[in-house]
Amino acid sequence: MKIGILGTGGVGQTIALKLNEIGHSVMIGTRDVSATLANVTPDGYGNPPFSAWHSANPAILLGTFSETASFGEILINATSGHGSIPALEASGEANLNGKILIDISNPLDFSKGMPPSLWVSNTDSLAEQIQARFPSVKVVKTLNTLNSALMVNPSALADGDHHIFVSGNDADAKNAVVGYLKSWFGWKHIIDLGDITTARGTEMFLPIWLRLWGALGTGTFNVKIVQ
Amino acid sequence: MKIGILGTGGVGQTIALKLNEIGHSVMIGTRDVSATLANVTPDGYGNPPFSAWHSANPAILLGTFSETASFGEILINATSGHGSIPALEASGEANLNGKILIDISNPLDFSKGMPPSLWVSNTDSLAEQIQARFPSVKVVKTLNTLNSALMVNPSALADGDHHIFVSGNDADAKNAVVGYLKSWFGWKHIIDLGDITTARGTEMFLPIWLRLWGALGTGTFNVKIVQ
Repeated sequence: MKIGILGTGGVGQTIALKLNEIGHSVMIGTRDVSATLANVTPDGYGNPPFSAWHSANPAILLGTFSETASFGEILINATSGHGSIPALEASGEANLNGKILIDISNPLDFSKGMPPSLWVSNTDSLAEQIQARFPSVKVVKTLNTLNSALMVNPSALADGDHHIFVSGNDADAKNAVVGYLKSWFGWKHIIDLGDITTARGTEMFLPIWLRLWGALGTGTFNVKIVQ
Repeated sequence: MKIGILGTGGVGQTIALKLNEIGHSVMIGTRDVSATLANVTPDGYGNPPFSAWHSANPAILLGTFSETASFGEILINATSGHGSIPALEASGEANLNGKILIDISNPLDFSKGMPPSLWVSNTDSLAEQIQARFPSVKVVKTLNTLNSALMVNPSALADGDHHIFVSGNDADAKNAVVGYLKSWFGWKHIIDLGDITTARGTEMFLPIWLRLWGALGTGTFNVKIVQ
């Protein structure tokens, strides 16, 4: 399958490698390919620049947002929260229309200190803003409640006995995404929360996630819904 | 131990019964005792009025907020979110000062339709507002992330293999509350998230909790943090 991933950060890289490993054709999209490759400065966490990662992983294609959206039969939004709608606008509506967009982004606001707060929440969500701006895109929010290593390898923790969630307005698209999450990554426990407004719940989970990260001293954890 | 519970709703009733059952002296506080007892109308969910519950459970004392705050060596805030600060103001600062307040309330806003949103969140929380208004009270936020039946009986679910959280500025008060949660109710897994600002995380957990309630068709569930 041809999969387009918007966003060159750690989440996009981790998902791209996993999808490539299992045989998919993957393109990562960025605003300006030349500028992305010219940047040789490690990020704020000391991670190597995307250009180094790209050289080490030549099987992963790199394109503009527009090229990536055109390439992908299914698209994954792994941009930062602030970057999501601009990236989708740069992708071009004709390249997006009718496609499933797996939205992993979170509206984290780092401007008010650490840990970050959210720049949209409570009576709205980033997922809803994306769906409202691009009505013909089938937005399915998922995977935004855990770190990227676990997103693609849930069995690394308690043999996969923990949960993720899906939110979206299109039932067929949600079912398709649930199937992808199972077949791509091995997810066993996925709860359909309902329509895209339920993404408020998963985005508003970030504040407790961030505090748990601090309290536990690791981001390698997830929630299990115990019944 | 003498325990004062502010709030006559289902959470207050459930906790009062459990604490009385294990030998504590419990007073429930309300704004106007006569008005509370004169109300014989079932609530919006069809539950019997407090007066009927009170007649059936005469061992639980009933008093004004002020009498209850004076009575309790430790206090529990089980009022509605909107009612919390007014109830504490009616309790009288002299009756509150220096005491531990276990805060179970959530700032649910039912004015914008169902499920409710929050009237404070993200960069503030109800727990912080209570702590700021009553600086000498030792506010410990906990138990606000699950239903009342499970609050007092965690072993009813998966033999208690799931989590609650505590947030608060006073380390000794938090340690004391962790001890109470273990000895009163049998909690085995309690995560200290940090200072009172971490209550933003547990209060902002309510939106996903409410959507899970809808998706699962039951409120009898809780989260386990899997590491």
